[in-house]
Amino acid sequence: ITSKLPNNTTTIFTTMSLMAAKYNAINLSQGFPNFNCDPKLLVLVSKAMEEGHNQYAPMPGDILLRERISQKIETLHGAFYNPETQITITAGATQAIFTAIAATIHKGDEVILFTPAYDCYAPSVTLFGGKVVPVQLQPPSYSPDWMTVRNSVSEKTKMIIINSPHNPSGMLFSENDMLQLQEIAEKNNLLVLSDEVYEHIIFEDATHQSAARFSALAKRTFITASFGKTFHATGWKMGYCAAPENLMAEFRKVHQYNVFSVNNPIQKALATYLKDASHYNGLGAFYQQKRDYLIALLKGSRFKLQPSKGTYFQLLDYTEITQEADVSFAERLTKEYGVATIPTSVFNTENKDFKQLRVCFAKTEETLEKAAEILKSI
Amino acid sequence: ITSKLPNNTTTIFTTMSLMAAKYNAINLSQGFPNFNCDPKLLVLVSKAMEEGHNQYAPMPGDILLRERISQKIETLHGAFYNPETQITITAGATQAIFTAIAATIHKGDEVILFTPAYDCYAPSVTLFGGKVVPVQLQPPSYSPDWMTVRNSVSEKTKMIIINSPHNPSGMLFSENDMLQLQEIAEKNNLLVLSDEVYEHIIFEDATHQSAARFSALAKRTFITASFGKTFHATGWKMGYCAAPENLMAEFRKVHQYNVFSVNNPIQKALATYLKDASHYNGLGAFYQQKRDYLIALLKGSRFKLQPSKGTYFQLLDYTEITQEADVSFAERLTKEYGVATIPTSVFNTENKDFKQLRVCFAKTEETLEKAAEILKSI
Ligand SMILES: CSCCC(=O)C(=O)O
Ligand SMILES: CSCCC(=O)C(=O)O
Repeated sequence: ITSKLPNNTTTIFTTMSLMAAKYNAINLSQGFPNFNCDPKLLVLVSKAMEEGHNQYAPMPGDILLRERISQKIETLHGAFYNPETQITITAGATQAIFTAIAATIHKGDEVILFTPAYDCYAPSVTLFGGKVVPVQLQPPSYSPDWMTVRNSVSEKTKMIIINSPHNPSGMLFSENDMLQLQEIAEKNNLLVLSDEVYEHIIFEDATHQSAARFSALAKRTFITASFGKTFHATGWKMGYCAAPENLMAEFRKVHQYNVFSVNNPIQKALATYLKDASHYNGLGAFYQQKRDYLIALLKGSRFKLQPSKGTYFQLLDYTEITQEADVSFAERLTKEYGVATIPTSVFNTENKDFKQLRVCFAKTEETLEKAAEILKSI
Repeated sequence: ITSKLPNNTTTIFTTMSLMAAKYNAINLSQGFPNFNCDPKLLVLVSKAMEEGHNQYAPMPGDILLRERISQKIETLHGAFYNPETQITITAGATQAIFTAIAATIHKGDEVILFTPAYDCYAPSVTLFGGKVVPVQLQPPSYSPDWMTVRNSVSEKTKMIIINSPHNPSGMLFSENDMLQLQEIAEKNNLLVLSDEVYEHIIFEDATHQSAARFSALAKRTFITASFGKTFHATGWKMGYCAAPENLMAEFRKVHQYNVFSVNNPIQKALATYLKDASHYNGLGAFYQQKRDYLIALLKGSRFKLQPSKGTYFQLLDYTEITQEADVSFAERLTKEYGVATIPTSVFNTENKDFKQLRVCFAKTEETLEKAAEILKSI
């Protein structure tokens, strides 16, 4: 058979997590916490199962959970998303991203995205016959250059994909970035896919500039989000998509044939849990403490860094240590030193290598200490 | 935006379940049990969560669960599927079906399927630019006519989709059917998608003729299966795909960008639960009793039926009652009589109407009694 994705192999996350396991390395590669989620939430899932909520959830998701999401967006961003018609619960943000692309990208459409880019966007676009047009973000700031974006728009451009807080750089789109994006999207009649999975992991009291806050932008935007990231349960594969009604109608057409609906007891549990909206608070402070702890531990090491502004990732510049390619250095770090990281070139256009590794600091203090001790020794 | 699925609306399952709720009708429409799954399994899920298995499962699924599946296929069908490379855990069989089609169907490919057909096959093919070539099954037997299949094969045919036990008719493919399919697939170098979600719900000691049993066929076949159907937990959205290595490699390329991986604690729980393979036994007898009870309760009614041979569905012929179109009769039954069913014409080529409604008998005796009492009164 002829491959639909001839240039894709196993994701870097799978590769590095397997390598970490093989060499018994501390795994700071794939992004997930190594601590458990709130026991209260676990009790609620168990209760939902015992109460018999084990059959199909409604196709767009549990209505109470959709209402909670609507309330959250309204509280945080002052925008109203109708839970009936504008919000759909998905099997993780990845399925939301894939489905939004599946529902809108036709053969020949061009899709602009910022590299380094999380690795599922491009192949999803390719699978539907779209063409990826990358705009490279440059270290150390990784801030988007809107002139380059303007110059990248063609008659065929259909969508721009953004991701703020940005994985892997920890960069945040500013209010001005969003206004620039809004102007470009309006002027050229583009769709936007705004991957906001790290929306609640923002440091130094910065504000998350959700696409929902910009009404002319929101009208043409799919927002994708993740409960796994927010509630330390990445393995539950639970997220959502919020979009205007016309876009959501097309999204659901694909969603219902892709997965039909998603895990029911977890939806019921989250709906109950989120009655208390304070569960959203404090996540930024929680992870800022981890970021700061890691940075403090790495003081005096030969890795240089700009503190991450959001996400649970930190980039480490290793140019003072070696000029080796990042893929090879990451492999050596795993095998010889016992710390697994993510080489960032795999997320860049033509694998452009800034000699930076990404580490995930969603880890216990003990793990951060052990990893930092090794990294300092290099 | 231009719809990718202009001719598709909300699935009949969503439509009928919503209508059932609105009119407070007994819901025999969408296929799901109205009783809970084994409490032992629930305890295992809770335990997995407490033990902290709440982060990403491996992309292709928990390896122990994949081994259990491999053992099951070997025991039942004498075929070996390598858990490392030939089995992937999916977010329900629907996601497995969608992903298999996504990974293999190119624009212009023709896909033969048997109608009435479960409603996700055709739109998934359409979404990827394929063309559906339906072969109509005829009541009362609904047996496939292989001469028609042979005549439907063209140079462009890429895949044949089969579904046995068959939803909605309860028909089973015989050994001879599978041999005919194997011959046609080999001769024309076709892929096969074998949707076997009701594999364990087979009556009168018939044998499930899995594609896995026919080695020349299995070499070109994606088998999709469902834990939800087998363990009374349709809302968990947990299934799998088994396929030869070359097909599975392409499947996983799409799977990893579609959902990446699926619910981890449930996979852990199922892996432990299936240490005891006897959990697969008795499902046929369990549902046969329900089928027989429903048939006995309907004795003397004006609905006529051929007993279902597999699945948890029974077709009811209503030609003695009315000549009304099945969609309209199903609607009236829900609103005026309080029993929701599925009109089967929506699964047929050009909505061909055999005046048959599908009822789901995965219900408690009490529900079956109440529903039958109403149906008898019509
Ligand atoms: C889906 S595995 C990758 C998790 C993640 O978001 C990351 O590591 O960037
Ligand atoms: C995904 S909802 C439909 C469930 C089912 O298999 C059916 O009713 O046929």
